Amino acid sequence: MNDLTRLFAPRGVAVVGASADPAKMGSVMMRSLSSFDGPVVGVNERLSSPADGLYPSVAAALEAGQGPIDLAVLCIPAPLCPGALERAAAVGVSAALVCAGGFAEVDDTGAGFQAELAAVAARHGVRLLGPNTSGFLAPHRQIHATFVPGAGTVPAGGVGVVAASGGVNHALAFLLASAGYGVSIAVGLGNAVDVSTADVLDHLADDPDTTAIALHIEAVADGPRLLASVRRAAGVKPVVALVVGRADVGDFARSHTGALATAWRTTRALLAQAGAVLVDDERQLVSAVGQLSQSRLAPSAEPGVVLVTAQAGPGLLVMDDLRSAGVAMPALTQATQERLGDLLPPMTYQANPVDTGRPGDTFDEVLAAAADDPGADLVAVYALSEPDAVDLAVTLRALTGPGRTFALATGGVETETQPQRDKLIADGIAVHDGPTGLAVGVRALVTDARARHRAAAPATPDVPAVGAAFHVAGRTSWDEDDAKQLLDAIGVTTPRRRAFDSMESAGRALDELAGPVAVKILDAAVLHKTDIGGVHLGVRNRADLDAALTALAGIGATRVLVEEMAPAGVDLIVGARRDPVFGPVVLLGLGGTIAEALADVAIAGVPLSAADGSALVDQLAGAAVLRGWRGGPAVDVDELTAVLAALGQLLVDHAHLDEIEINPLRITRHGLVALDAVITTRSTDGQPHH
Amino acid sequence: MNDLTRLFAPRGVAVVGASADPAKMGSVMMRSLSSFDGPVVGVNERLSSPADGLYPSVAAALEAGQGPIDLAVLCIPAPLCPGALERAAAVGVSAALVCAGGFAEVDDTGAGFQAELAAVAARHGVRLLGPNTSGFLAPHRQIHATFVPGAGTVPAGGVGVVAASGGVNHALAFLLASAGYGVSIAVGLGNAVDVSTADVLDHLADDPDTTAIALHIEAVADGPRLLASVRRAAGVKPVVALVVGRADVGDFARSHTGALATAWRTTRALLAQAGAVLVDDERQLVSAVGQLSQSRLAPSAEPGVVLVTAQAGPGLLVMDDLRSAGVAMPALTQATQERLGDLLPPMTYQANPVDTGRPGDTFDEVLAAAADDPGADLVAVYALSEPDAVDLAVTLRALTGPGRTFALATGGVETETQPQRDKLIADGIAVHDGPTGLAVGVRALVTDARARHRAAAPATPDVPAVGAAFHVAGRTSWDEDDAKQLLDAIGVTTPRRRAFDSMESAGRALDELAGPVAVKILDAAVLHKTDIGGVHLGVRNRADLDAALTALAGIGATRVLVEEMAPAGVDLIVGARRDPVFGPVVLLGLGGTIAEALADVAIAGVPLSAADGSALVDQLAGAAVLRGWRGGPAVDVDELTAVLAALGQLLVDHAHLDEIEINPLRITRHGLVALDAVITTRSTDGQPHH
Repeated sequence: MNDLTRLFAPRGVAVVGASADPAKMGSVMMRSLSSFDGPVVGVNERLSSPADGLYPSVAAALEAGQGPIDLAVLCIPAPLCPGALERAAAVGVSAALVCAGGFAEVDDTGAGFQAELAAVAARHGVRLLGPNTSGFLAPHRQIHATFVPGAGTVPAGGVGVVAASGGVNHALAFLLASAGYGVSIAVGLGNAVDVSTADVLDHLADDPDTTAIALHIEAVADGPRLLASVRRAAGVKPVVALVVGRADVGDFARSHTGALATAWRTTRALLAQAGAVLVDDERQLVSAVGQLSQSRLAPSAEPGVVLVTAQAGPGLLVMDDLRSAGVAMPALTQATQERLGDLLPPMTYQANPVDTGRPGDTFDEVLAAAADDPGADLVAVYALSEPDAVDLAVTLRALTGPGRTFALATGGVETETQPQRDKLIADGIAVHDGPTGLAVGVRALVTDARARHRAAAPATPDVPAVGAAFHVAGRTSWDEDDAKQLLDAIGVTTPRRRAFDSMESAGRALDELAGPVAVKILDAAVLHKTDIGGVHLGVRNRADLDAALTALAGIGATRVLVEEMAPAGVDLIVGARRDPVFGPVVLLGLGGTIAEALADVAIAGVPLSAADGSALVDQLAGAAVLRGWRGGPAVDVDELTAVLAALGQLLVDHAHLDEIEINPLRITRHGLVALDAVITTRSTDGQPHH
Repeated sequence: MNDLTRLFAPRGVAVVGASADPAKMGSVMMRSLSSFDGPVVGVNERLSSPADGLYPSVAAALEAGQGPIDLAVLCIPAPLCPGALERAAAVGVSAALVCAGGFAEVDDTGAGFQAELAAVAARHGVRLLGPNTSGFLAPHRQIHATFVPGAGTVPAGGVGVVAASGGVNHALAFLLASAGYGVSIAVGLGNAVDVSTADVLDHLADDPDTTAIALHIEAVADGPRLLASVRRAAGVKPVVALVVGRADVGDFARSHTGALATAWRTTRALLAQAGAVLVDDERQLVSAVGQLSQSRLAPSAEPGVVLVTAQAGPGLLVMDDLRSAGVAMPALTQATQERLGDLLPPMTYQANPVDTGRPGDTFDEVLAAAADDPGADLVAVYALSEPDAVDLAVTLRALTGPGRTFALATGGVETETQPQRDKLIADGIAVHDGPTGLAVGVRALVTDARARHRAAAPATPDVPAVGAAFHVAGRTSWDEDDAKQLLDAIGVTTPRRRAFDSMESAGRALDELAGPVAVKILDAAVLHKTDIGGVHLGVRNRADLDAALTALAGIGATRVLVEEMAPAGVDLIVGARRDPVFGPVVLLGLGGTIAEALADVAIAGVPLSAADGSALVDQLAGAAVLRGWRGGPAVDVDELTAVLAALGQLLVDHAHLDEIEINPLRITRHGLVALDAVITTRSTDGQPHH
């Protein structure tokens, strides 16, 4: 038994803070829970004996035979919560929901109550949801542990909701209901003092009523744990995630749950890598998770979508969205097009999209022909509701079967479209209310199929271990030559070079290296060599070399690095750093001012699979520059992945390494070359230093 | 009387192609028009005399006293349409709707029918909607000239719809109805052989029932005419535009209406410049136009939005969207915050957003305090529906008044939220179903207010006329020196330079210019000088100069340009070109490979106002690079605008100039310097040549 079962499927519930006053939160909660067919007892600890159907304690209710009670719902002010929980736990309550605010989101006093509450829960092994949440819904069990009115009308269905916020949880539940979907369990976490997003994900992954999971994230406490739960859940059912914090909303977010907003970009990247489908807003969340709660494509690197539309204009909107997002819409085979030619009037477009004109008697055969085309993993259908011409519910029900997946959008009078939609959804076919919903649903199916294809790929490229001869562990100060030796040791190409411990000895550099060479100050304390005039490029002869050395001596250089110049190419910035929430991550970006200004950086967690590395490149807005732009050199993605994987592994293997950045890593016609590298270590007190 | 009045407000209608068979399109159209309270007569030209209530001709119907008839709705196959229209026009019909397909979107034969139809309409002055469209709705007059079932249920309201496609027109009308809004007139243009988007815009701009206009564009025939109509309409009511064609959908689009898809980026940019609010999909279109049909902010460069939310989580989603879009959410004044402090429990956030917690008795006073804050042009409100706590419809109705604008989103059980929403919309307050709809509505209000502020700004910076001394008109071949002389003539700074007609004379360049200099081949036939080794930079002394000249002679140079090197800075690409649809446009982008790969280019039409120039810079993803990135030089936006305006004016003034590009235009600490320029002219046959 999953240990959240007593929370979401209790045998009995006590509402602590129930009141004879119908306007009090406890009274609202009692009414909301009245649909539950197990015992629901009202407790008011200010009573000295039972009155108005309320008990003075959970213990008294149990003594009166009102049991068993697994879940205590606390509708009392924050200062009273720890004591009440203690007393409930003492008589066997094993799960609790705390709705009140006034905890860590407010001030230090509140944080004190929150710590007390957490301690009580931990001591008794009580699973505690909240505090500071409007509760949860479990409509399959008729449990509406919430004080939001109307929540009891949200139908039972396949979508599990895990929201950081109680308000968002309810907003999503209502929107899912309006869109024709129901929820399995819908949870608002609030301050998440015990039950976390990951805990609920684990529960929903195992919950047979849940067919897809909607995830709303404001802050992440334990990154690796969250990713592990997403990875596990996504392996068995789709996970769609909405992450807050694109803009700087930290100040308000903190006031809300007391936690720092997590890094939006990193969180999204790592959730996607773990298998979640990322969306940009709650509308997309509803369309995507609704779609995925009904069907899932087989894992595929490139699922093919065929669009069949009864109206060209809306079809064009769908196609424009899908094409812009890089969804494959393969041309139908000659055989399919011939079949369609027999079924449709000659004037319509039949290659993909298939434009049927007003649906007629052959609409079902058209859909079947499209679905059975060898390139079709999914048929997306748009049709205005024309019940006299075709009953979409009857048609699609008859067509659905193994190897055929349909997604549908329709438009029309709600009184007509809603009953049709409900029938279709009951038959496992998602229905959207317009072109954009359909496109979002299709993209979600495709993204999910691609993620599962990636997940099935071989895990990690072989990452060379750092040879024992190379001393990493003790080193806290890395100059460029040290860093490049480490790169050499993990298989990253660096230029041929010589480090010289004096200016005099450096004078013979050109005897040992082929010109032109770069001459640089070698000093671990200098992070930005170029800014202080510490780099001389294109040095070809002894006179130039002497001039460069003199100049470097002038800025205080005592050691210099001389290295052969790399051929021209495209400069990347790659690195590995420790994210405070998620641990080691790798980063990939283009070099140069503009790329920096655009913050065009792709992020992934480690270990990094070959497929992850390829996905990283795809994520860059400027990816085309890496692929042989205007006759320039193209990156070997496997080689790049190996570099990134090796950098990430270094941080996994060596806890004192804080960050390593290669800037630039140049794409040349002979492969990747690391032209400069900086390594930062952490001192024993955990602070980074250089 | 606007000349589309007979089309959208006819005194009587004839349906040509009406039939005794209820399944025929003509029969569907008759039923759809039955709500109209003027005469609606059925005509079937295959009859020889009246039968089954149908007439053999419009003339026969008129003779039978069934008049007046202004509008003929043709529900007959394409080949029959020209003749039928001719006969109807002959007896006084002045407007027509042609629903059939089979015209230019299909093949040459269809194009022939279309040309015939157009000729008949032109000859008789008949305003013709279509062909190839499902028609239009004018619910204020109970006219549903459409064969889409259920269209008659779309309520009368303030949103005018102009859609390229009949299907999109209906999809939008149904979505607007579902969202609680009604339509004034909703039109699908189809092949637009006569009545165009601009015509309908002109009509809607003058239509007293229309409070906002939704525009769906697939192709633009007459760019300047469209922009003029948008500009005029946006001056009196908001225009929201959705443009198809982000991806390459041209092949399918052509099959749909027979027209080439217009350039998506250019169309969007010029519509925005003309005052339209651009959206990305039909969901946003509904949210934005619904919002703007209810209220419009005063023109402002930076409208201030105050967000009041009863649930922190959904409020955070709204705030994240608005902040990411650059919407100003100013902190409330100390006085307002003190007032809120009296009204709200101490634990809530009150600076902006205002987090009220569950709405209570003071909710109306909180909203009033927020609305009356000096920084508030708009109050956006999110609250889950809690009718026992607060009646949002009653509260907001009481608060709305001069200087106070509210936008609202709520969530809850539809049976509760829909009646509330309908009451609020009837009172002029837009209501959205979630955080994203609210954010889209708010952004639309802000974008509209900013566009009107821009439109009110002085029109065009002073554009220097090209001096008479400089001979533009006759010149068809421009080398770099010619082009730079033209730039000098219009006030664009170029480097000090000398053109030399022989290698020998060029040897004295360093006597006349301060080194270092650039030495370039001067040949109008060479477009990419760098690629052929035609540019030598950093030439400092006579020996280097001679080497450069020898090398240039080696690639066939007979003339050279020597110019002083510009100081370091940020390189832009600016230009003016002739768009085939819209005429002269100016372009602004960052120089370099990455900017090119990212296609980060901003576009505007001419004349260009100072505000337009500033907006152009803002549109660049890499705008930060122009604003003094990492201590680099910042652009003088007025100077940049003057350059762009002057380039655009050149194309307006000189029809034989096809394109002029300055690449790079360098931002230096001393202003903008044009380092290279290329001018392309058009030969007399209209083909560009160099």
